[in-house]
Amino acid sequence: MQPLAAAAAAPTASAESAAAMRVVEVDLGDRSYPIYIGQHLLNDGARLRQHIPGNRVLIVTNTTIEKLYLQKCTDALKAADPQLQVDSVVLPDGEEYKNMEVLGQVWDKALECRLDRGTTFLALGGGVIGDMTGFAAAAYQRGVHFVQVPTTVMSQVDSSVGGKTGVNHPLGKNMIGAFYQPRCVLIDTTTLDSLPRRELASGVSEIVKYGLIRDAELFEWLEGNMQRILERDPEAIAHAVERSCINKAEVVAADEKEGGVRATLNLGHTFGHAIETSTGYGTFLHGEAVSIGMVMAADMSVRLGWIDASILQRTRTLLQSAGLPVTPPESMSIAGFKELMAVDKKVQAGKLRLVLLKGPLGGCVVTGDFDPAKLDETLAAFCSH
Amino acid sequence: MQPLAAAAAAPTASAESAAAMRVVEVDLGDRSYPIYIGQHLLNDGARLRQHIPGNRVLIVTNTTIEKLYLQKCTDALKAADPQLQVDSVVLPDGEEYKNMEVLGQVWDKALECRLDRGTTFLALGGGVIGDMTGFAAAAYQRGVHFVQVPTTVMSQVDSSVGGKTGVNHPLGKNMIGAFYQPRCVLIDTTTLDSLPRRELASGVSEIVKYGLIRDAELFEWLEGNMQRILERDPEAIAHAVERSCINKAEVVAADEKEGGVRATLNLGHTFGHAIETSTGYGTFLHGEAVSIGMVMAADMSVRLGWIDASILQRTRTLLQSAGLPVTPPESMSIAGFKELMAVDKKVQAGKLRLVLLKGPLGGCVVTGDFDPAKLDETLAAFCSH
Repeated sequence: MQPLAAAAAAPTASAESAAAMRVVEVDLGDRSYPIYIGQHLLNDGARLRQHIPGNRVLIVTNTTIEKLYLQKCTDALKAADPQLQVDSVVLPDGEEYKNMEVLGQVWDKALECRLDRGTTFLALGGGVIGDMTGFAAAAYQRGVHFVQVPTTVMSQVDSSVGGKTGVNHPLGKNMIGAFYQPRCVLIDTTTLDSLPRRELASGVSEIVKYGLIRDAELFEWLEGNMQRILERDPEAIAHAVERSCINKAEVVAADEKEGGVRATLNLGHTFGHAIETSTGYGTFLHGEAVSIGMVMAADMSVRLGWIDASILQRTRTLLQSAGLPVTPPESMSIAGFKELMAVDKKVQAGKLRLVLLKGPLGGCVVTGDFDPAKLDETLAAFCSH
Repeated sequence: MQPLAAAAAAPTASAESAAAMRVVEVDLGDRSYPIYIGQHLLNDGARLRQHIPGNRVLIVTNTTIEKLYLQKCTDALKAADPQLQVDSVVLPDGEEYKNMEVLGQVWDKALECRLDRGTTFLALGGGVIGDMTGFAAAAYQRGVHFVQVPTTVMSQVDSSVGGKTGVNHPLGKNMIGAFYQPRCVLIDTTTLDSLPRRELASGVSEIVKYGLIRDAELFEWLEGNMQRILERDPEAIAHAVERSCINKAEVVAADEKEGGVRATLNLGHTFGHAIETSTGYGTFLHGEAVSIGMVMAADMSVRLGWIDASILQRTRTLLQSAGLPVTPPESMSIAGFKELMAVDKKVQAGKLRLVLLKGPLGGCVVTGDFDPAKLDETLAAFCSH
């Protein structure tokens, strides 16, 4: 991973962050961008300012994050450049608001403020805010600048890397969107101190995923350090976030538009999306649904004879140690799973493709070439009807 | 224009179109695509099929074009490949329906039909259908294939080249969208036989524009051949459409994302958009508003001393010979123009930039560097209040 990701000690404006800051470079040619990871980076308005072209910013946040960090973020930017015009729009908080109608509020605000093509949209919040702000930026006047300040583990390790943006449709998650890269991602790990325990665990689910699909060493480190992460030990958090970003950045750099290897990042997601859609957005957090989905994918991989049963057991144990669910809700039926998995974006020419584990820990495949009876067996094992 | 545009006699499947078909290549690197221009090309399903990857097509059209060409287009595709699955969605006809809500009907239909990422969206209709279908394709599952079959002069000479897609917002035209290139454009000039006279003239307005901004020869040819175009003489139409596509393709190839020279294509559009917004979409056709806008821009250019008054007079005469309006409606006020022009996408860092004529016929500039008093004089000359 050397050429791509550098944990360089870049100079910082704030003394307290200087020691610990890590930088991950996402290598996408002329769309490359840095991810800064460290404590108290939100105080460092100068760093953000250097990635904001022009002199107008629209901060997009939600009602929860507004109270915690909007003023701080605005003040930091204004302190770095008093000339910067900073507007903001506050969306309702929750996956159930990740739709075109709520997204329209961002465009309404931008047009009311007469923001032009040189404007930068800044996402301040979790994955929902990041995805929505990114798509809003991609489509506003056919594209304005975009920076991200993710405030949840989930958004720091997943949605902040890779440029996938969008909103949900009643018939499927993330069905409407764009590939759109930010100019930088600023991860202030201190913001996790205010994150509810359940959301912390949801993000951890995606970290476990990187271990399963490509980084056995990270998986094993998590087996020994889950408690430290749940206690928000700054060093453990920073390590887990950095390793996750490096993993995702490597995958995305190899396959920006998801033609090949990038699809491995969807481990557990086809099952998980079906759970989220069936139960209604907001019932399960995304990482919770993915946690269940990863266990189901691992179960199916064992049934196919592709991995040793011990990997399934270790996966289940690790996810449970984070307090994550590992079985679908009673309401989910076999037929319900099949119906919902058929509209998944990973369906190609009518054939369902799944990310499944194969070989030793850290190995996986994306394939539609599996015995469908094994999928039926897994669904039967996890659903009572 | 040699390296870019070739009027090559490519082989065709249909004898009646073989003689006359013209091909313009739009040169955009790995997003390059051909524009086919000729009579009866809509019968040539094989040509369309070769630009459709995969085996599912969603035809997007409107209630007017549905009756005229939907069955024909579907039949041609099915004749070329009986395996091809062809679905369609019919939108209401008119600029007033070019909004996110109506666009959502395309996504609803695509999801109901379970169309996957390998699907191709085919725009069958005028500029509104092309713009909406393009944006629908850009954002559906973060991007599916797109082909265009434009059926109006306006869409054949303007919106089919350059990849600008999008919808209107109550606060401004085309404010939400994407740059998204089709895989091919098929222009069947026979479809213009069913085009209302007023819409024909609206498209001619954009052809005149190419003459004014970069092609004096075309402008002069139009001065001698307007009647043939209005009578839909196939040769005259094909020549005007081809020359327009070549002009636009050259500009777009030089500047895909509108950083520089592409902005010249907006001659008359800043004034025109203000007229369209003020009167409500649908009152004026786009080309009609642009016609008025071009005369206003030419008037301002004369006042600035940048062009000879004869160019303004010839422009007015040529547009009037096509039956196009050359003065804004009585309802438009000086203040109204100023208010609406301030939210135009061409505003940069708060400063209004305009496309203005300069030098001999065929010369223009994009600039914010003009005496604002001359804009006031032009507005005063065209508005009674």
